[in-house]
Amino acid sequence: MNTVITIGRQFGSGGREIGTKVAEHFGIPFLDKELVAKAAKDSGFCEEIILNHDERPTNSFLYNLVMDTYSFGYNAAHFVDMPISHKVFLAQFDAIKKLANEGPCVIVGRCADYALSERKNCLNIFIYGNEEEKINSVCRQFEVEVSKAREMCIKKDKQRQSYYNYYSSKKWGRADSYDLCMNSSVLGIDGTVQLIIKGIEEFERKSKK
Amino acid sequence: MNTVITIGRQFGSGGREIGTKVAEHFGIPFLDKELVAKAAKDSGFCEEIILNHDERPTNSFLYNLVMDTYSFGYNAAHFVDMPISHKVFLAQFDAIKKLANEGPCVIVGRCADYALSERKNCLNIFIYGNEEEKINSVCRQFEVEVSKAREMCIKKDKQRQSYYNYYSSKKWGRADSYDLCMNSSVLGIDGTVQLIIKGIEEFERKSKK
Repeated sequence: MNTVITIGRQFGSGGREIGTKVAEHFGIPFLDKELVAKAAKDSGFCEEIILNHDERPTNSFLYNLVMDTYSFGYNAAHFVDMPISHKVFLAQFDAIKKLANEGPCVIVGRCADYALSERKNCLNIFIYGNEEEKINSVCRQFEVEVSKAREMCIKKDKQRQSYYNYYSSKKWGRADSYDLCMNSSVLGIDGTVQLIIKGIEEFERKSKK
Repeated sequence: MNTVITIGRQFGSGGREIGTKVAEHFGIPFLDKELVAKAAKDSGFCEEIILNHDERPTNSFLYNLVMDTYSFGYNAAHFVDMPISHKVFLAQFDAIKKLANEGPCVIVGRCADYALSERKNCLNIFIYGNEEEKINSVCRQFEVEVSKAREMCIKKDKQRQSYYNYYSSKKWGRADSYDLCMNSSVLGIDGTVQLIIKGIEEFERKSKK
């Protein structure tokens, strides 16, 4: 097994749980905290700043989308005149590339597919779900009411979409931005995990030819 | 095995070959000519007219997109004042529903996923591919030059997208319009077939719970 797996996902679709189970199956790292720690260590930012800008178009990000200006730059050691959200993105981008160099792993979100677009041993997956199932899942996980869960789903997916479409050259949620896309409500969490495992096996079989 | 499989696909991605192989594996019908024959028989149109409007936004279709009018109706037995492209669509829509009632089968294109959206035993798949592989495939299949193949890919996908987006409530090529989406260039034709088979197995396992 020599594949780096990236997983994009709709909020509430179980992408993180699915990613964890796939990593467990193959005995490879599921990168989350490691990614933040690596980005922090190499960039000089503290982990809180990385987490605070994680896949989130911040005010400065949105401001830049409109104004296309780098006017309120934040001076870190090695990137000057750039808003902090961009610096955090670049630090994560760099950490993703370095960690993928160390061997097969699972990375969820953060435009990892785009960061790794030049790697041949990378399989890019997108997980989504039916609205009702996603909302129920968010209600359970965050102990919130249905209306709050619906609002969270809409807001989070908007953030992820803005982040992805801004930083990558592809469109979030379009099938052909990924190699494999699955509705976890239709297949179930375990069914989705099994299908990803099969997908990786077929991908590696084809790569060896 | 009790699943109706619908396959949407980009031109040149091998969707038809993949659909045929999936149908062979399960020993179920691959509906293509049968669909046209059924639509013709039940609607009274001749098969040539059905084929001529098959997944194709005709001039009258495009005219209607713009004008939103049914001014140049064609009088068939049971639908009056409606352009022929709409009548052919309705005849196919009806044929898809009737044939799916007869048992598991594979149906490619023609908004079959939308026609069958109320069925629970239906798995909707979208197949796409990398540009280079699709163009090479079209060059081989139709014995044309690269530039002609590229043009065919663009034109055909535009037609399919217009047809799908006009007649269904979903967006062609968006991951969440389908249950499962696969890049056949990444997995190969046989790998894609294997993954669909696995997907159907997992789908049926979950449905039985």
